[in-house]
Amino acid sequence: MSRLNTIRKQTGAAFTLKKGDFLKVIDPEGQQVSDMVLFNKDDIREKISNGKTMDFEESILLTKGNFLWSNRSHKMMEILEDTNGRNDFLLAPCSPATFQIMYNNHEPHPSCFENLLINLEPFGVRPDDIPTAFNIFMNVQFDAKGKLSVEPPTSKAGDYVLFKAEIDLIVGLTACSAEDSNNHSFKPIQYQIIERTK
Amino acid sequence: MSRLNTIRKQTGAAFTLKKGDFLKVIDPEGQQVSDMVLFNKDDIREKISNGKTMDFEESILLTKGNFLWSNRSHKMMEILEDTNGRNDFLLAPCSPATFQIMYNNHEPHPSCFENLLINLEPFGVRPDDIPTAFNIFMNVQFDAKGKLSVEPPTSKAGDYVLFKAEIDLIVGLTACSAEDSNNHSFKPIQYQIIERTK
Repeated sequence: MSRLNTIRKQTGAAFTLKKGDFLKVIDPEGQQVSDMVLFNKDDIREKISNGKTMDFEESILLTKGNFLWSNRSHKMMEILEDTNGRNDFLLAPCSPATFQIMYNNHEPHPSCFENLLINLEPFGVRPDDIPTAFNIFMNVQFDAKGKLSVEPPTSKAGDYVLFKAEIDLIVGLTACSAEDSNNHSFKPIQYQIIERTK
Repeated sequence: MSRLNTIRKQTGAAFTLKKGDFLKVIDPEGQQVSDMVLFNKDDIREKISNGKTMDFEESILLTKGNFLWSNRSHKMMEILEDTNGRNDFLLAPCSPATFQIMYNNHEPHPSCFENLLINLEPFGVRPDDIPTAFNIFMNVQFDAKGKLSVEPPTSKAGDYVLFKAEIDLIVGLTACSAEDSNNHSFKPIQYQIIERTK
């Protein structure tokens, strides 16, 4: 078992994950969201795709048993465990524009988009390469007419999602910076990389 | 009024659209789907984004009054009229992999992904640049648990969606090639470009 890494509130991290390795993303205090993006380590033009994933998995909601797919129709990760059970794959990572347009907040504000970019730039990722993220623990509700609302996460302290890498990956991960995503209380996210048994 | 252009069944088209101009996409026979992708004419790295659009419009379903947004958080098009009222922005364009993985069809099969790519390549668009399309007339149903199903379109002969360009655009458009999207009867799509009044 590897060490427990902590992503401080309103920051992010990026790292590589080998095919067959496991990633455990933990909400240590409860009601926090982590935006996750994935790239093929050998060619970052291949990346996680919500449109491909919802198509192949035939579901808006993704949890234990589902796979996360790439824009090239390859499996990138499998969700092996999900103690909370609610994640989102509809909404783009919060960005400076999110706070300006949706919250009319024109002051500087940390965002998942910037936190993903800062950490992924050393891997060659540029701003326009950041796709819609798989938003772990994010509680986006929708009604029959498709109306969306961002609600406080249902995750409790210690809830986690366990992923298995299907290919060699570059992973970007945040502790979300948007007030609406985490019930107005910014908190850390933790993660562990667990190497497959040889 | 410009001439009426016809996209033959299981093919596509690409063209430019000036800021302020209108695009009318017509289902001439009923129950057909048209996948539409948009790029900023001056920088194709800026393109239509379902994650940004669903975030800013706060809805899965998009119709008259909604805008289509880019990955850079700019408005690309406004939907001015929608006589059918059902479109999809969840599912990626059908591709060779769609038919292999979802339909277990390993024979050559036309696809929206290839039809978009062939027509957009002259504008510098490469395969990995094709985003999840706005699927005009596509009838994707979802239940409260997020389960998705592709149903026959509700569009009738002559139904149309009228868009207004918010910036100079490159537009890719198809007459969809997937059996499930158009009730197993491939048909053409028509479109008109209507220049704004000077």
